[in-house]
Amino acid sequence: MLKLASFAAGEWVGPGSGARPIFSAVSGKVIAEAGGTPLDTGKMLDYAKTVGGPALRAMGFHDRAGMLKTLALYLNERREALYELSYDTGATGRDHMVDIDGGIGTTFVFASKGRKELPDGDIYIDGGLEQLGKTGTFLGQHVAVPLQGVAVHINAFNFPLWGMLEKLAPTLLAGVPAIVKPATASSYVTEAAVRMIVESGILPEGAIQFIAGSTGDLLDNLSGQDVVSFTGSAATGTMLRATPNILASAVRFTAEQDSLNATILGPDVVPGSPAFDVFIKEVHREMTTKAGQKCTAIRRIIAPEARVPAVIEALSGLLAATPVGDPRDKATRMGALVSADQKADVLAKAAIIGEEAERVFGDPDHFVPAGDVAPDAFVPPMLFHCADPDAATKVHATEAFGPVSTVMPYRDLDHAIAIANRGEGSLVASCVTESGDVARAVVRGSGAYHGRLYFNNPTSAKEATGHGSTMAHMVHGGPGRAGGGEELGGIRAVLHYMQRVAVQGSPDLLTAVTDTWVPGAAEIDTGVHPFTRSFGALQIGETIHAGPREITLEDIEHFAAFTGDTFYAHMDEEAAAANPFFPGRVAHGYLLLSFAAGLFVRPDPGPVLANTGLDALRFVKPVVPGDTLSVRLTVKQKTRRTEGHGEVRWHVTLTNQDAETVAEYELLTMNAV
Amino acid sequence: MLKLASFAAGEWVGPGSGARPIFSAVSGKVIAEAGGTPLDTGKMLDYAKTVGGPALRAMGFHDRAGMLKTLALYLNERREALYELSYDTGATGRDHMVDIDGGIGTTFVFASKGRKELPDGDIYIDGGLEQLGKTGTFLGQHVAVPLQGVAVHINAFNFPLWGMLEKLAPTLLAGVPAIVKPATASSYVTEAAVRMIVESGILPEGAIQFIAGSTGDLLDNLSGQDVVSFTGSAATGTMLRATPNILASAVRFTAEQDSLNATILGPDVVPGSPAFDVFIKEVHREMTTKAGQKCTAIRRIIAPEARVPAVIEALSGLLAATPVGDPRDKATRMGALVSADQKADVLAKAAIIGEEAERVFGDPDHFVPAGDVAPDAFVPPMLFHCADPDAATKVHATEAFGPVSTVMPYRDLDHAIAIANRGEGSLVASCVTESGDVARAVVRGSGAYHGRLYFNNPTSAKEATGHGSTMAHMVHGGPGRAGGGEELGGIRAVLHYMQRVAVQGSPDLLTAVTDTWVPGAAEIDTGVHPFTRSFGALQIGETIHAGPREITLEDIEHFAAFTGDTFYAHMDEEAAAANPFFPGRVAHGYLLLSFAAGLFVRPDPGPVLANTGLDALRFVKPVVPGDTLSVRLTVKQKTRRTEGHGEVRWHVTLTNQDAETVAEYELLTMNAV
Repeated sequence: MLKLASFAAGEWVGPGSGARPIFSAVSGKVIAEAGGTPLDTGKMLDYAKTVGGPALRAMGFHDRAGMLKTLALYLNERREALYELSYDTGATGRDHMVDIDGGIGTTFVFASKGRKELPDGDIYIDGGLEQLGKTGTFLGQHVAVPLQGVAVHINAFNFPLWGMLEKLAPTLLAGVPAIVKPATASSYVTEAAVRMIVESGILPEGAIQFIAGSTGDLLDNLSGQDVVSFTGSAATGTMLRATPNILASAVRFTAEQDSLNATILGPDVVPGSPAFDVFIKEVHREMTTKAGQKCTAIRRIIAPEARVPAVIEALSGLLAATPVGDPRDKATRMGALVSADQKADVLAKAAIIGEEAERVFGDPDHFVPAGDVAPDAFVPPMLFHCADPDAATKVHATEAFGPVSTVMPYRDLDHAIAIANRGEGSLVASCVTESGDVARAVVRGSGAYHGRLYFNNPTSAKEATGHGSTMAHMVHGGPGRAGGGEELGGIRAVLHYMQRVAVQGSPDLLTAVTDTWVPGAAEIDTGVHPFTRSFGALQIGETIHAGPREITLEDIEHFAAFTGDTFYAHMDEEAAAANPFFPGRVAHGYLLLSFAAGLFVRPDPGPVLANTGLDALRFVKPVVPGDTLSVRLTVKQKTRRTEGHGEVRWHVTLTNQDAETVAEYELLTMNAV
Repeated sequence: MLKLASFAAGEWVGPGSGARPIFSAVSGKVIAEAGGTPLDTGKMLDYAKTVGGPALRAMGFHDRAGMLKTLALYLNERREALYELSYDTGATGRDHMVDIDGGIGTTFVFASKGRKELPDGDIYIDGGLEQLGKTGTFLGQHVAVPLQGVAVHINAFNFPLWGMLEKLAPTLLAGVPAIVKPATASSYVTEAAVRMIVESGILPEGAIQFIAGSTGDLLDNLSGQDVVSFTGSAATGTMLRATPNILASAVRFTAEQDSLNATILGPDVVPGSPAFDVFIKEVHREMTTKAGQKCTAIRRIIAPEARVPAVIEALSGLLAATPVGDPRDKATRMGALVSADQKADVLAKAAIIGEEAERVFGDPDHFVPAGDVAPDAFVPPMLFHCADPDAATKVHATEAFGPVSTVMPYRDLDHAIAIANRGEGSLVASCVTESGDVARAVVRGSGAYHGRLYFNNPTSAKEATGHGSTMAHMVHGGPGRAGGGEELGGIRAVLHYMQRVAVQGSPDLLTAVTDTWVPGAAEIDTGVHPFTRSFGALQIGETIHAGPREITLEDIEHFAAFTGDTFYAHMDEEAAAANPFFPGRVAHGYLLLSFAAGLFVRPDPGPVLANTGLDALRFVKPVVPGDTLSVRLTVKQKTRRTEGHGEVRWHVTLTNQDAETVAEYELLTMNAV
């Protein structure tokens, strides 16, 4: 029997004398025990805040992203051991792909996004500069910094690894230590993974702690620097959210809870078509994956009135051909619920749904799972048909957390949207359609009620990730019944563990704060051209002024002839003057860019290897023949990209003989370190 | 006496027989009465959701921004009437600038940002595309859509107009109707403004309702589509937040409550210096503006140990020269608290602070306000000195909501930061410093505890907006004690009233949903060049293919000679080949851009008036002599800018003879409508 311990303040603790048994969903036997040892949560919080937090904050985003990559590689090498444990939760080999490979994959995504999308430093820059005065001596810039508290992750039983890693990856990337508390029923999988993580030594001390068993008085000891991220039932979520200290200390509380997710068969899709097949396969997969124990599974199938019989027939056919039984058997397509308790709950909820809907497939009273298994936690997939979804209330409010779904008819698209919204807030709704108008209407009519809207059809079917798949890139969460929270969504998830701060000050102070040159800040002149200085040597604010060069009419005519851009504003004085934006003939914008480069580019090999891009170019004022062009080029930001190369973002301003800005842009170069 | 009515479901209602009196802060006499009529809050919510919401959602962002501008202009013409009423709240003419002009100014900012920063449509595009499959047939795009519920604004007494408008402007811009409930003590100012707004007919029916008196059972009837935005005391905020329905329905709840805002005198600033004067003036203004009844006022003054006497002396001097009395008198620098109740509360809190700090300026027991006023609501500014802020607890936790502040010493910057963070979460902290290192350390050490960090010094002093000024551009809110909420911050505030939705689907469906061409979506060929078609006629997805044109070595050499850009990668085969990014001599990036323009630009006058800019240019693959260049130009987005002009954002892809992308960018043109 596995003895599950907590990892508290750097020590493995427990289980104690009051530990609770955990049963295999497959054999019905006790396979582990957990809990029974009261934890000193004050000490755990203190340890996280004084040891883990400072260690994580001493790293930059890219360091932490690299740490996540190392961690994902480490776990990936050990996933067979986690698969083996996971079978006892009732999960099949296919389900492991979602939980174990999915969890590791999510960690890889955050590692990658951390490198690509976060700055090579310790502070996040949020949005653009705000000029708060006339001349620009006082500006505003939003940034985000790591919270100085602890993230408490309270996770559901259905995904013991993914559930931990999808929250842990963005938390660590933010620079915040975590305390992980999984649901007990499958906590032996999570505990095994935490042991791997701790043994690996990849995370700094104090970055992770783990609770097997009860959280005790943990929530009573949290502060406004802490975050609770909860996944589970609405009942538990509402109870935790009401903790007096959570309310009084304004502790951040994110919940991802019940959800009556809907799918809509588009009005344009007819039975027998490839799109219809896409729809049926999607629903079948969502009903049976993880035995329907997915917060994103399809609970309500909304189809045009006339298509309901065809939908029921097609789904029933696929469900009848779905082997349910021993998850270790490769032929098995659907395993067990996590426990006998969950089975009782699912059957009770199915009975409530049965008060408003007829069961048209699946009979739990006459069902035997395949293989040498205890039947305690197994149910068959069950399909219901609710003929009057407008009159019904329970089918829109009762989540049977298993392979249970209800078909309901709609009259027209507005009606379908109204039925979908009857869920009063869900994690995801989907629609199979080939019509842009249908997709447009669904987003506008239903978007406010759903955290995610998933569209599929034969064009996208091959690459579509699945109605129920929570991608690390896309937000996961939903309003109302779904808890009102938000997770994932790439870097958005990292910001949930950071504090946004509006910083106001002079350009010099903002430059110092953000490691980003702000217009108006001091220009650094080292006496040599910055293109001759290595990436490492370059300082934020290093500047070169180049020019002037006169722009002649001959230049413009020559450029026009050479490039073929003979737009009248460059070529015809009268026509140009009739254009409301030009005083007469003007220089081509690209002529200005090209001449500017000619003014500052050095011919000989040096640290600048390539111009890789350009951003935010604005032509501010026309340049007419006889104007002279000067350029100022300043190091704005530096980002280490590889061992040997770093990206430099230059702020460039082109001015005329009257020191008026004629164009402004940001230039990207790849430099040798 | 003013009889304040509620505006509920389109009708003015009340006051009823149980109405409460409201007293002038200046004369002490009853000037208004409010409440006493129970409201049918179910009907109010239904009215907002069925009348106001649909009307607002039928408009686009730019329409709603235009509506806000009209509203701001309308109120601006009527502000004298609001000034006149506001004197009785104890506010001076200077205070009116903050509340009345500030509220109208905030509305102008949202109108302007709505036009400039939001799309010319009805859906907000949040972040970039996420490619979720290998070939790009299935993509993700986050958007935001208006919530289909109601925003309930529960406001504080101190800014009866700004408090309403700073929440109302982003709510309406989001497309959500509001129910405004001001604090009773100053609600006659708000009611007068709401009467103006209703009479103006500028807002669609149902967009605004108003409660004079109690909210009754309003919070019990809210859903997950609704938002409560609360400003007031922590005690009230915690009570409202604990409403069972708010918790169970996951109603969005934003709070902006108590805050022990700190200011730090930088270690680099010495008495007698201009920076020291900046500090003293800032503190004095924050203590006395609105008689210190500002959630952002400075409550704790943190100064280097050695500077404490100089700070107390300088502040006491300014405070002594601050006339306190009749707010209608132009010589008055500080008016009254809003009520006798508030005076009692401020004196009680000052007494608590007095247990840990010595009062060094201001004696409420021997104080007479100037002018013919009742003394009931007047207090003098009071300055305290707490010698041991580490041992103290009450000075960090007790907000006297009046002209009360405490000076405390620090040893070094880390100590100053630790003291600032003892507030356990505040709206704003400030620091006067000329040192970038100090600013950098304060943001990293203290940022997690404060919603805003304000730096000032002689460089920025002239344009600095003030420690306590909440600018529409910058977020307002703070963690922990400050309530954990966030308001303002430009478009961020609008998103608080919208639902973020992760939309997944094929490029064609995402294009239809977002009014933005997505790579991979259908290209529309109308048979004519899109540059010949007016802004109005152009469709999203209209595309022209142009080229090919060969790039010769002569072209490269010619371009180098002409522009002066003789970088070795263009000029020297051997040196170029040694560069890790190039196979040998390559074409200049700007040569490619220029030739591409030559391929698609039409010489004759037409609807395209100017190329105004370029975004997100990336050079993906080098182009070598002999390669041929083709270009695809597609209408990505359209934004109406003026009556006569619209901006077109084009997606441009440059390819070589093998159909490989060599560069990609977005081009902006200004077109005739």
